Amino acid sequence: MAGTTPQPQSRIRSWWGWGWTDAHPDDAECVAMGSLIPGTLARPLPVPRVRDLGIGGPSVEPPRSLEHLVSTAPEDRAAHAMGKAYRDVVRALRGRPGRIPDLVARPTDERAVADLLEWAGDRRIAVVPYGGGSSVSGGVEYRGDAHGAVLSLDLTAMGRVLEVDAEGRAARIQAGTLGPSLEDQLRPHGLTLRHFPQSFEFSTLGGWLATRAGGHYATGRTHIDDFVQSMRVVTPAGTSGSWRLPASGAGPSPDRLFLGSEGALGVITEAWVRLQERPRHKASASVAFTRFGDALRAVRALAQSDLSPANCRLLDAGEAALSGAAQDGSAVLVLGFESADEPVTARLDRAVGLARSHGGRPGGTSGTEAGPGGDAAVSAWRSAFLRMPYLRDGLARMGAVAETFETAATWDRIPGLIEAVRSEVGAAALKATGHPATVNCRLTHVYPDGAAPYFTVLAAGRDGDEDVLWDELKAVAVEVLHRHGATVTHHHAVGRDHRPGYDRQRPEPFALALRAAKGALDPHGVLNPGVLVDCPGARAGRPQRRPARARSRSQPTCTVTVPPGDTRCVT
Amino acid sequence: MAGTTPQPQSRIRSWWGWGWTDAHPDDAECVAMGSLIPGTLARPLPVPRVRDLGIGGPSVEPPRSLEHLVSTAPEDRAAHAMGKAYRDVVRALRGRPGRIPDLVARPTDERAVADLLEWAGDRRIAVVPYGGGSSVSGGVEYRGDAHGAVLSLDLTAMGRVLEVDAEGRAARIQAGTLGPSLEDQLRPHGLTLRHFPQSFEFSTLGGWLATRAGGHYATGRTHIDDFVQSMRVVTPAGTSGSWRLPASGAGPSPDRLFLGSEGALGVITEAWVRLQERPRHKASASVAFTRFGDALRAVRALAQSDLSPANCRLLDAGEAALSGAAQDGSAVLVLGFESADEPVTARLDRAVGLARSHGGRPGGTSGTEAGPGGDAAVSAWRSAFLRMPYLRDGLARMGAVAETFETAATWDRIPGLIEAVRSEVGAAALKATGHPATVNCRLTHVYPDGAAPYFTVLAAGRDGDEDVLWDELKAVAVEVLHRHGATVTHHHAVGRDHRPGYDRQRPEPFALALRAAKGALDPHGVLNPGVLVDCPGARAGRPQRRPARARSRSQPTCTVTVPPGDTRCVT
Repeated sequence: MAGTTPQPQSRIRSWWGWGWTDAHPDDAECVAMGSLIPGTLARPLPVPRVRDLGIGGPSVEPPRSLEHLVSTAPEDRAAHAMGKAYRDVVRALRGRPGRIPDLVARPTDERAVADLLEWAGDRRIAVVPYGGGSSVSGGVEYRGDAHGAVLSLDLTAMGRVLEVDAEGRAARIQAGTLGPSLEDQLRPHGLTLRHFPQSFEFSTLGGWLATRAGGHYATGRTHIDDFVQSMRVVTPAGTSGSWRLPASGAGPSPDRLFLGSEGALGVITEAWVRLQERPRHKASASVAFTRFGDALRAVRALAQSDLSPANCRLLDAGEAALSGAAQDGSAVLVLGFESADEPVTARLDRAVGLARSHGGRPGGTSGTEAGPGGDAAVSAWRSAFLRMPYLRDGLARMGAVAETFETAATWDRIPGLIEAVRSEVGAAALKATGHPATVNCRLTHVYPDGAAPYFTVLAAGRDGDEDVLWDELKAVAVEVLHRHGATVTHHHAVGRDHRPGYDRQRPEPFALALRAAKGALDPHGVLNPGVLVDCPGARAGRPQRRPARARSRSQPTCTVTVPPGDTRCVT
Repeated sequence: MAGTTPQPQSRIRSWWGWGWTDAHPDDAECVAMGSLIPGTLARPLPVPRVRDLGIGGPSVEPPRSLEHLVSTAPEDRAAHAMGKAYRDVVRALRGRPGRIPDLVARPTDERAVADLLEWAGDRRIAVVPYGGGSSVSGGVEYRGDAHGAVLSLDLTAMGRVLEVDAEGRAARIQAGTLGPSLEDQLRPHGLTLRHFPQSFEFSTLGGWLATRAGGHYATGRTHIDDFVQSMRVVTPAGTSGSWRLPASGAGPSPDRLFLGSEGALGVITEAWVRLQERPRHKASASVAFTRFGDALRAVRALAQSDLSPANCRLLDAGEAALSGAAQDGSAVLVLGFESADEPVTARLDRAVGLARSHGGRPGGTSGTEAGPGGDAAVSAWRSAFLRMPYLRDGLARMGAVAETFETAATWDRIPGLIEAVRSEVGAAALKATGHPATVNCRLTHVYPDGAAPYFTVLAAGRDGDEDVLWDELKAVAVEVLHRHGATVTHHHAVGRDHRPGYDRQRPEPFALALRAAKGALDPHGVLNPGVLVDCPGARAGRPQRRPARARSRSQPTCTVTVPPGDTRCVT
């Protein structure tokens, strides 16, 4: 049942930017892109080199018993220093990446994960779980100096589909399995997870689970959460294994506590996930709208119908132009249906009809038995979608601001929210740079009761200081989100970047509960410190070089004290 | 926007048995039913009377400021002593109900809930949140003597729909709203929650949320969980209010921690829930199967299709005979489709065709625009379904064992699980009573990856000791569930009755986290002690009569100490 773990061998992953190095825009392309944004540099910043970072030796050595799993190579350590947000790329380009981890460990089984956690816990070494490294919210770096050393725990050596239950359409899959490998291993069984985030090539099942990733479906089961049958999570206090169940009502769901826990409560090592037959019927279409408000009403009607489109993405005029879906100032709705079970063209026709009744102008419609259908607008959108992060990095090299952020809100908030983000972030960018900025919006996921807007910001930078400028603009955006009751993130996770917004949004009693849970599961405070909750963790200082290996289980090391105002973790 | 809270005035709720007193079977009906089960009594046990319980005065007085919310009437206290499981009914019939609460409080707003919790926390008085009181797992009683007094916190005076968002199809509803009142208040808006558990008339929104109740839909969104947009929960450590969001990926979901928390972490006071338009199209049908195995395969195919039937209940031969759906030894599949959006007969036809291709014999099919459709088998099943708990109580009066339990498991486990429950529980009953027992099964909810079997056990009792006999049979059942990896409950909650199975099923690190969360939110350990997690709570003894009102927030009162094996709550 176990498959191999095919990994692309011939291409090189960028240590500092998105994806494959051979897909990066070259200097000429960067210049061409930069010329479209006023106030950018004349020439691209050079591609950064690891050797220029002057990475010293690690401040800790791995124990003999685990050293075969550990890399101290500067290239490895640099590539694991940060995720792939715009601000991470800028920091790499400007030669000031986040703190470089001392070690990169690649455990090959759950036992090794537990051993590494025990070793790190004993020495108060921060452990940052790392899947594909595609975090865009500061989820895979270490900030501060409360820990004497940092271990990046790369799960990608655990990349296999271990079991397939064809009858029940489920598979047990290791957390470090990257998207393409996961689908490759499922394909011979005629099954698919159909979780296709934009980061699909460069993210793992474990990362999706830890961050509650948004996937393929624009409606219905939009997040990975609903595809989880059971999970295994290694915590310093023991390994959690939930039962494989189609559903349960036995207390609060254990899985739902670990889903979205971002490595702060434990390290997800594997999961049973729900699969589907590969779709045989697909059809897609685009519908253009002169007025964005009409498009919003059409999308709401679709989301409240029984139609359940797999794709239901609404691009505003700017986004449609940027992706090549429309150049005439129209908003474009991209619709897609798919099924393993029955033809979908009737559903597509009804959906297009519904959109038309709200003022939409249908573009081409196409269906296919073998692959994704789509008219020209759909195809343009799809290829632009996958190319986007590479272009962002090209613009970063031109000193431009090029970043996205996303949220979700109820329908009553959506029009005002989108307008406020556009105007307030645009105004802030103009004020900061003296140049007008582009702020586009698309809806990536839609619900009967609301939608998830996704914003793209393109602006002049501030030479040498682009990441700080972006942080300022993002703070303006988060303020707007907060004022409109919109979540700080719909599917990009909290990480460290979203903490200010998240901390205000999260109910305080839930924060108490989460902090107490962390204290119980991570008593030394070594697990991904800084994401989600603050827990002082290990004292700052150099790690011990040769600690006693056996962890004493009888010595309480963390005390959580309540009531509120008095809650703290102490090691 | 606020509606009134229509409550049936003319009917009387039974303090000891299910539902309305006027719907209880009379003595002659009890005798007739009893005659169908070998080894039962010749005459029914008398209907129990509150005055025979000899309820004394409460051991604590409410404070002056809250006394207008508090009842000490024996009838009120007796009615709040237990839920409505078979074992509860037996205990009432045998004159030994659970511990009688000292006080029944009916707060009218969130502030009063907080005041009551503060008062009870100061005095270490156990607080048992109470909605409709229909718990069948010991969720609304107090056991033991660790607390000097017990307060039943009845939420039904908070029974209003407070706001309706018609555009976004959502409503803000108070937790104490009973099912019929909730739908009555939504009806003028053309909207419905469509959450129809068997207990619909006698359960509340808050109860559904606290127990992760299973509802109307046999596929898809089977539990109330997925209909929650946001919740407010009063905890001793503060009030938690999550944001109204269609979806979010910001950390572990706060709502999912309180969903299923069964009053152990806080008192749910209101929620924004997702609504739907009232269905205009309905169609239903039944399909008979000679072989149960064929029926299982048909149901699995349906659950893995795109058809999403609202109802997809499979009755085995015994259950079909008991409900009048079939008398020829056939299993019967009850199918129902509904939509506010489009006709459903084509979907029903496809579903029936799919069932036929697995060996099913279609019965009548009917659709309607105005009400539930259904052939004779469907109608028979539906009325038997609602009548069932009343009949159970009639059988209890005849000294019979008559109870149900439910679970869920993946498809690979389902056939063996059902067979093992039938044979092992049947054998245990025969051994204990000398009479053969009936063990029937139906599938109430089905999923692509598994199903939720629901078992009915009818057996001779053991005179005077029926509840203990049932506990013994249930222990046999729980052992079978555990061996087959089936959850201890799919939608009946853990309460106190399911603790032995739940404690074995729950991953230990999650137990640590939950215990720590409870320690943080309920530092005095007064919230529904005994459900879900053990937390010693207040010292046994009499409550202080006149405590200082102001709770000191600066004095830590609960310490959670880890690692595992060393975790405890201390007050």
